Amino acid sequence: MKRFLIGLLMFFAVSTGSSLQADEGMWLFNNLPAEYLKSKYGFEATPEWTEHLMKSSVRFNVGGSASFISSNGLVLTNHHVGSDTLFKISNKEHNYLKDGFLAKSFSDEIKAPDLELNQLITIEDVTDAVKAAVQETMSTEGAVAARRAVIAQIEKDSLDKTGLRSNVVTLYGGGRYHLYRYKKYTDVRLVWAPESAIAFFGGDADNFEFPRYCLDACIFRVYENDKPAVIEHFLKWSDNGAGEDELVFVSGNPGRTSRIFTTDALKYQRDVRMPFVLNLLRRREIVLQQFGLKGVENARRAREDLFGIQNSRKAYLGMIGGLQDPQVMAAKEKAEMQLLAKIKSDPKLKSYESAFATIAEIQKKRVAILGKNIALNSQLFGVAKTIVEMVDEDKKASGERLPEYSEANRESLEQQLYSDAPIYSDLEQYLLADSLSMMLELRGADDELATKVMNGLGPTERAAELVQNTKLLDVVYRKELVKSGSEGIESCNDSMIRLARILDADTREFRKINDELAEGEKQAYAKIAEVLFATKGTSTYPDATFTLRLAFGTVKGYEQAGESIPAWTKFGGAFEHETNHTGQEDFVLPETWKKAKENLNPETPFDFVCTADIIGGNSGSPVVNRDGELVGLIFDGNIQSLTSDYMYSDKDMRATSVHSSAIREALKYVYNAGHIVDQLGK
Amino acid sequence: MKRFLIGLLMFFAVSTGSSLQADEGMWLFNNLPAEYLKSKYGFEATPEWTEHLMKSSVRFNVGGSASFISSNGLVLTNHHVGSDTLFKISNKEHNYLKDGFLAKSFSDEIKAPDLELNQLITIEDVTDAVKAAVQETMSTEGAVAARRAVIAQIEKDSLDKTGLRSNVVTLYGGGRYHLYRYKKYTDVRLVWAPESAIAFFGGDADNFEFPRYCLDACIFRVYENDKPAVIEHFLKWSDNGAGEDELVFVSGNPGRTSRIFTTDALKYQRDVRMPFVLNLLRRREIVLQQFGLKGVENARRAREDLFGIQNSRKAYLGMIGGLQDPQVMAAKEKAEMQLLAKIKSDPKLKSYESAFATIAEIQKKRVAILGKNIALNSQLFGVAKTIVEMVDEDKKASGERLPEYSEANRESLEQQLYSDAPIYSDLEQYLLADSLSMMLELRGADDELATKVMNGLGPTERAAELVQNTKLLDVVYRKELVKSGSEGIESCNDSMIRLARILDADTREFRKINDELAEGEKQAYAKIAEVLFATKGTSTYPDATFTLRLAFGTVKGYEQAGESIPAWTKFGGAFEHETNHTGQEDFVLPETWKKAKENLNPETPFDFVCTADIIGGNSGSPVVNRDGELVGLIFDGNIQSLTSDYMYSDKDMRATSVHSSAIREALKYVYNAGHIVDQLGK
Repeated sequence: MKRFLIGLLMFFAVSTGSSLQADEGMWLFNNLPAEYLKSKYGFEATPEWTEHLMKSSVRFNVGGSASFISSNGLVLTNHHVGSDTLFKISNKEHNYLKDGFLAKSFSDEIKAPDLELNQLITIEDVTDAVKAAVQETMSTEGAVAARRAVIAQIEKDSLDKTGLRSNVVTLYGGGRYHLYRYKKYTDVRLVWAPESAIAFFGGDADNFEFPRYCLDACIFRVYENDKPAVIEHFLKWSDNGAGEDELVFVSGNPGRTSRIFTTDALKYQRDVRMPFVLNLLRRREIVLQQFGLKGVENARRAREDLFGIQNSRKAYLGMIGGLQDPQVMAAKEKAEMQLLAKIKSDPKLKSYESAFATIAEIQKKRVAILGKNIALNSQLFGVAKTIVEMVDEDKKASGERLPEYSEANRESLEQQLYSDAPIYSDLEQYLLADSLSMMLELRGADDELATKVMNGLGPTERAAELVQNTKLLDVVYRKELVKSGSEGIESCNDSMIRLARILDADTREFRKINDELAEGEKQAYAKIAEVLFATKGTSTYPDATFTLRLAFGTVKGYEQAGESIPAWTKFGGAFEHETNHTGQEDFVLPETWKKAKENLNPETPFDFVCTADIIGGNSGSPVVNRDGELVGLIFDGNIQSLTSDYMYSDKDMRATSVHSSAIREALKYVYNAGHIVDQLGK
Repeated sequence: MKRFLIGLLMFFAVSTGSSLQADEGMWLFNNLPAEYLKSKYGFEATPEWTEHLMKSSVRFNVGGSASFISSNGLVLTNHHVGSDTLFKISNKEHNYLKDGFLAKSFSDEIKAPDLELNQLITIEDVTDAVKAAVQETMSTEGAVAARRAVIAQIEKDSLDKTGLRSNVVTLYGGGRYHLYRYKKYTDVRLVWAPESAIAFFGGDADNFEFPRYCLDACIFRVYENDKPAVIEHFLKWSDNGAGEDELVFVSGNPGRTSRIFTTDALKYQRDVRMPFVLNLLRRREIVLQQFGLKGVENARRAREDLFGIQNSRKAYLGMIGGLQDPQVMAAKEKAEMQLLAKIKSDPKLKSYESAFATIAEIQKKRVAILGKNIALNSQLFGVAKTIVEMVDEDKKASGERLPEYSEANRESLEQQLYSDAPIYSDLEQYLLADSLSMMLELRGADDELATKVMNGLGPTERAAELVQNTKLLDVVYRKELVKSGSEGIESCNDSMIRLARILDADTREFRKINDELAEGEKQAYAKIAEVLFATKGTSTYPDATFTLRLAFGTVKGYEQAGESIPAWTKFGGAFEHETNHTGQEDFVLPETWKKAKENLNPETPFDFVCTADIIGGNSGSPVVNRDGELVGLIFDGNIQSLTSDYMYSDKDMRATSVHSSAIREALKYVYNAGHIVDQLGK
């Protein structure tokens, strides 16, 4: 399970108004459900336990989670989280993504071109400061600007003071603002990755299913000053992993959930946005498949994007499937009616009632603008757009800029902008042609701006012209352009830069409209959050925001179509699974596994499920026991869990993990990586 | 190249107003371009030559073309035209579609479950009779009814008189009406088919490309009274095929073209309908792929549909790509301006000017209704819908019914309705679930009718309920239901029948609206046709109507991206093509070819291109020389030819054929089918 694609609109919101389900919640590390854990599980999360787990957790800024697993900088995550890097360090000769990799020594470890890992150090409540900057009398536009300015200032001050990456996080849809400070690691090197055939055994068919037999794991190492970093907080490796019904914890970064969404907002998702996104995903899936059909190297180039798209498509299908179930929607409506009844009956809350109508109104406006912006699927165009915006934004004070260009975010932005990860011109051209075609479909081919974009050519020809007449593949040229400032950009005749300039005004205008809608929603959801605080206190959790959360649950199987699904699979099952799917290309075990078969204990646990409440972005999260020892590695949720975007149930929703023993045994017996095993948890 | 899917809206229209391009045209057999052929090629199509070719030509009602190639009933067509039958006669044990088939003797030949072949016998102009029945004073609805009635009567009278299948064809978008009489063959048996790996060598990647190396051919035999039919008109087999620049003719059934479309109509296609259809095609493609991933037998069940969808998707992408090219649209606009100028300057034509505005208005109405009908992708639902409608329609006089239920069409309809071709419940359920989900997206899940359709369930659950509670898999039950009449249908609690009844009124209403729009277009295009007749006489050809047409051209290579593409490929090239694509699954030659390699002459021509003007539906058309001998078998058009839907050019548009020698040599040396070779052309 990959975090849903960045750029397909992010969500924010606050936790549901309905009563908490058993084991529900993606809890803030500074507001854990202490009472519940104690009464139900007799477990007490001490400050030391909590801090240790928090600081042992790692965020991958490509959209996943991870953990420190040794004092000398080893980081464990999923193969599909590392795959972005595996892809970027591969080429026609070495396909590490497909064939795997093992460093025999430190000097073999391969540096990732643009990976940034974050370790959460502190959380500080800055709600008062942020709220004080926004006055009720302000226009929507004014409110956006004022909040943006105060947040940029808080982040900048924190960065200056601590040297730590500092981000203000909007929680409970605007009910609270917390400042998160991270230690950044930007020298990250690949240590080990298995073959994609075992990391993603069963392929798209098995994705989001259980039973599974995937070693969806890989190991990086963080460096400082060109040496393995010395890590204070890291997870011990459990000897045997977790047993049936055992309490486990998941510490990771869920990307987004929509649990507080009003029914109007959910219906917009169900009837408008999700169908739109699904059409887009299917379109990209087919385009990438088509590109891959042209040859083996083409297939390699398209593979990483294709996997991400297929994963999102299957996730969205699960989400829309739930929303299209009348019973699911009826439950949501019922909960909303109850909340509304409470508001109406309480004079203190009555003023919050309008929030629901406001959200409904905003959904209508969202319908009207959906797909009207020109979003071109091209990395080179993305580079051009960033440069054009950056040069412009840099003329303003940091707090007045679009947030990604603020001073506090500059270092991370430049790491991406000046990355020398490969960009393939042929793939770029192919995707851009489709993207231009889609623009013409969405705006109508006679649209004035679209006509300017096309420059008198058809999509295929224009894409060729654009890709063949840009120098932005060259990172040095990018830096020169930024340095050349406004004048340089204005006189620049690079094809992509010129295109970015053509689109700049429209992109900014669309963003402004979108920001205002988001602001309106933010204010309305903040009101609903206040209602919840008023009735429940803050003993609830906010919707996911791709920041560190703690989930918990027990290791437990479930019922599916009358069948009992056990909590575990075992190594032996993987070989049977292959036999049961003879003739299907995604079900062929790697040679390494076939060779190692006789040395592997068929009873070794492989993958397991638990009831913890997770979602995309939790990929790579460590699963730990009461003692904080690593017992598993989250890599997926079952198909039933896809509706957890808007509601949780422990009935049959499950989080799927690789068992800690499977990773250790495979390292030892399949990959002959005893030297890595020796470092685990030490 | 498969004929674009029936059901995705058919087109009609009349030939372009711009001046004829060299070798352009899909000519009526009763109105060939005699003068042009004589002056450019010194060729005279005598009545005997014409009648012989016409009667040697065969239409496959699944959407393709073919020809008689022996006196004892052999019929040659494409593997991808025969594939519908190859799929239907296959099962888990015998996959004839994939593995091929060869009958050693008559008794081995396998009967197709529901194939109807048509041989065109006569063409009669009935324009006056049809036009006389429709008065200017009639409402649109009245005009539809009156025309429908007179056409049904003409067809019925003809059927009664001649016993031949009789269809009135609307030509020049309503400018002319011709009665086509066909001899029907319904006992059709499979004689030979190659493996799909060579029929579709290069797969989706090579589809619509050239050079090609495909043996996209198969052979059936028609029977009468359980004996091989005795055929008077059949094609001789050319000894060596056609040479470079040689004049060739293509006799087949192009499905539809849109060459007369006004620019407003083309823009509706470009900006609205084609994007909609492409989203639908991509959606079905992904769904079929997903179903196929579940196992080898699943993949087999999905394969035939999947191929059709992929083919359509690629074809539509080519079409929309052309329309999105500003230069193509500018050329269309220029031609239209010229025609309009002519109309305005001629007092006799002035009254026709409004036709363009009428068509523009209708496009707006089409935008408003597109996708609003509920079209469920389920064969079982299709059966239920047909039964419910049929029982209702049968209460009316033949001429008042929806045309497909008229007496003249009854036999063909029943052959489909009572076919015992396999329907796979698991595939049905899977496709229906997606289809229900799409309905909810298009209408909004709170829509009243959609809510009735869902019966309180989500798409997956409702699809399961529908498929598991119908008995329509049983052909006997279908017959009983029809027999039970209105009362039987009303009291029937079969799930699919009940669903068809829920949807009946809405379906009829949508059809009525659609028929009225089509009628409005018909009247407008008929006016434009009159302008063309007035300026050019009838020395032009009507847009394609899936009826027999003659195209012609020369065998000729072309330039592509500065590269010279030769007119031919050779057997030897197929083996090189495999080597050049090692590691790609669609580029593996069958074992039979590898074994036969040393017996094959690498210089044998394999596939070739010519300038003839064809389109989807021409698949399987014979290519003949001046002497009427078979020199090739149309199976595709190149990627450039996809825009021939709305314009033709001989610059780089090419029709792709299997060379007659390739078929003969492969039969002999690869398939050891000397006994078939001995019958060819004899």
